[in-house]
Amino acid sequence: MPIITLTTDFGTKDHFVGALKGAIYKELRAVNIVDISHEITPFNITETAYILKNSYQNFPEGTIHIIGVDSEISIENKPLAIQLDGQFFICTDNGIISMITNEIIPEKIVEITIQNSEENNLAILDIFVKVACHIARGGMLDVIGKKIEKVKELIEIQPFINTEQNQIVGSIIYIDNFGNVISNISQSIFNNIGKGRDFELIARNYKFTKIYSKYNEVVDFSIPEDKRQNDGKRLAIFNSAKFLEISMYRSNLETVGGASSLLGLNYRDNITLRFK
Amino acid sequence: MPIITLTTDFGTKDHFVGALKGAIYKELRAVNIVDISHEITPFNITETAYILKNSYQNFPEGTIHIIGVDSEISIENKPLAIQLDGQFFICTDNGIISMITNEIIPEKIVEITIQNSEENNLAILDIFVKVACHIARGGMLDVIGKKIEKVKELIEIQPFINTEQNQIVGSIIYIDNFGNVISNISQSIFNNIGKGRDFELIARNYKFTKIYSKYNEVVDFSIPEDKRQNDGKRLAIFNSAKFLEISMYRSNLETVGGASSLLGLNYRDNITLRFK
Amino acid sequence: MPIITLTTDFGTKDHFVGALKGAIYKELRAVNIVDISHEITPFNITETAYILKNSYQNFPEGTIHIIGVDSEISIENKPLAIQLDGQFFICTDNGIISMITNEIIPEKIVEITIQNSEENNLAILDIFVKVACHIARGGMLDVIGKKIEKVKELIEIQPFINTEQNQIVGSIIYIDNFGNVISNISQSIFNNIGKGRDFELIARNYKFTKIYSKYNEVVDFSIPEDKRQNDGKRLAIFNSAKFLEISMYRSNLETVGGASSLLGLNYRDNITLRFK
Repeated sequence: MPIITLTTDFGTKDHFVGALKGAIYKELRAVNIVDISHEITPFNITETAYILKNSYQNFPEGTIHIIGVDSEISIENKPLAIQLDGQFFICTDNGIISMITNEIIPEKIVEITIQNSEENNLAILDIFVKVACHIARGGMLDVIGKKIEKVKELIEIQPFINTEQNQIVGSIIYIDNFGNVISNISQSIFNNIGKGRDFELIARNYKFTKIYSKYNEVVDFSIPEDKRQNDGKRLAIFNSAKFLEISMYRSNLETVGGASSLLGLNYRDNITLRFK
Repeated sequence: MPIITLTTDFGTKDHFVGALKGAIYKELRAVNIVDISHEITPFNITETAYILKNSYQNFPEGTIHIIGVDSEISIENKPLAIQLDGQFFICTDNGIISMITNEIIPEKIVEITIQNSEENNLAILDIFVKVACHIARGGMLDVIGKKIEKVKELIEIQPFINTEQNQIVGSIIYIDNFGNVISNISQSIFNNIGKGRDFELIARNYKFTKIYSKYNEVVDFSIPEDKRQNDGKRLAIFNSAKFLEISMYRSNLETVGGASSLLGLNYRDNITLRFK
Repeated sequence: MPIITLTTDFGTKDHFVGALKGAIYKELRAVNIVDISHEITPFNITETAYILKNSYQNFPEGTIHIIGVDSEISIENKPLAIQLDGQFFICTDNGIISMITNEIIPEKIVEITIQNSEENNLAILDIFVKVACHIARGGMLDVIGKKIEKVKELIEIQPFINTEQNQIVGSIIYIDNFGNVISNISQSIFNNIGKGRDFELIARNYKFTKIYSKYNEVVDFSIPEDKRQNDGKRLAIFNSAKFLEISMYRSNLETVGGASSLLGLNYRDNITLRFK
């Protein structure tokens, strides 16, 4: 059974997600619809790019991803279908896919040219569903659009590296459910530039000289459990998505807060890595 | 595989939704359960009616909709199964379905008479699941209840039209994920009463003389992208559900706010259309 | 088709849940993934225990439950697979399952010994998925770990009973979507200790002498609907999970508030039952 995933900023209260699923099932009964996220901050392309990049690779080959963020179609925001890394992405050309295409060259990009059956403001319900089901039935991309070569680039997702190659200035691109603050500095950029040198990571007025690879590396298990004071300890870590993240150990946004609120780090703030 | 949808005010944190799905799968393994919404404001019949009306039509024929809002059964709130527009609805008789039955005459309405196997306060888990699975297996409505003719009416979902037929007073029945404010004035009522005349739409102290059909109609694409100032522009639009909505272009509730917060328009507030 | 359920504190915005589902489908296409909850308060074991206990029994025999709360694996937090009541639970040994094992003796407990394919901080994506799919394919628990006899106990889930057997001091273990406040006093403990005696239930400075079994028992249906004043009436009830709950009739957290906010009852607060 083909898999179609959904990533939108529709929220889960309104009827949009239900309507979208109904429309898919109406086209194609034997399909497995999987929610990736419907809680994207409205119109936030960078968040979407981050979520997409970190979930799609877990899915089986042939999975079809519908992306309903900033998806109102206009002459500047054209609908695309992209074949990449053995999977398919349907979105508008707003940079949302460029976090993946920066690393992996698409096998094919088409600008969707099939027409909306009626003029309305929820194109996703109509065009995206038709295209997704076409692909799910094994249809070719060439049938539904014309081949193009490039997608729009999203600039803010790349960190800045100085010419001396001893400094990386990244920015915060995502804050997760635990209040962890995630930068656009990937572990591979860190390794390529740092080459094993010592470093200092500066985020506001906080400094870090170590980057963990597991949260509980901060715990000294030789100290009895009731004597430890690790909760709320701040740490830098390469998260499961392999991006540099600033975290508070076992933080809770609803009570004490997380790295974001406690350290005052917000979406788009800079963090700096200096190598020695 | 039959489709059973769920629309509840249970929220997604508690065990209720999981328990409901488990109970359905225990009765019937080969079934496709689709969440429409679990984020309805507790006990809000109007919200439910709006969400239901705007999602059910997208689903394939034969879909079964379980509605778990205000569903504690009492002598005044009887359980119903309704066949309508080729689909099935299971709910209590509290007006929730009348937004649809106002426009489409049900094929059959039965008051469910099968008994709850145990006296508890979550009838939906027991009776609604049994009825849904009965229908999913192809069972007849007559077996599980007695035929009745009418459902309870929900009054607040109808706008008021004056006798001169030059004014419609609607009210706000829903505020969506983007802060858009949705009235109970449908495009068809607008067309029937307005008959193409000029009009003035008044919402609090804001006036509108145009109703858009796509959000990005407010954008002048001949102006370069970085010179445009459309974000936050207020507009009236017929939304994808074909109801009159007041919106802020690309609004964001978490940052600048949406039409609801910025214009001070709340659930149940009036808006007025005056034709010339 | 085997059923795998997910109970996590990942939230529904981030990519974690999508990535987890993708990873399962990559291992096993013919599987039914059901969300129980992803909104657990981060790291809250008691909440998880309560949600799990009240949902799992509704699922068909053979269902596999993945629990991703406090699931970072360490020498003190070992991964377990438990066969119990005809179903399977995969979690770390942090007490999360003890609310169920207090009542039902597990058929088998194994400490999972298969290795993580790469060192990362999201073990659930790797080990738990592999184990779940192994079980779903009909594999034996013995293959993936070594048999152990006991799981860690969660202390705070048991109420305190005095030696005279005329007083039960419980604590609040959960607050639900409606603001209902749920204690750890089960109906069976109440019956066993109370033996039909009169009682007084004290929660802060509120007293109750009756425990309802349906919310709308507070309504006097002989009074005309528009004359009744039941909304917001406080009551004690055995909820559908058979735990003692304090509720406000038809409360709404977004407007008037629920039992939690209005009565000032919070997570971990005590409530006392005195028998006469």
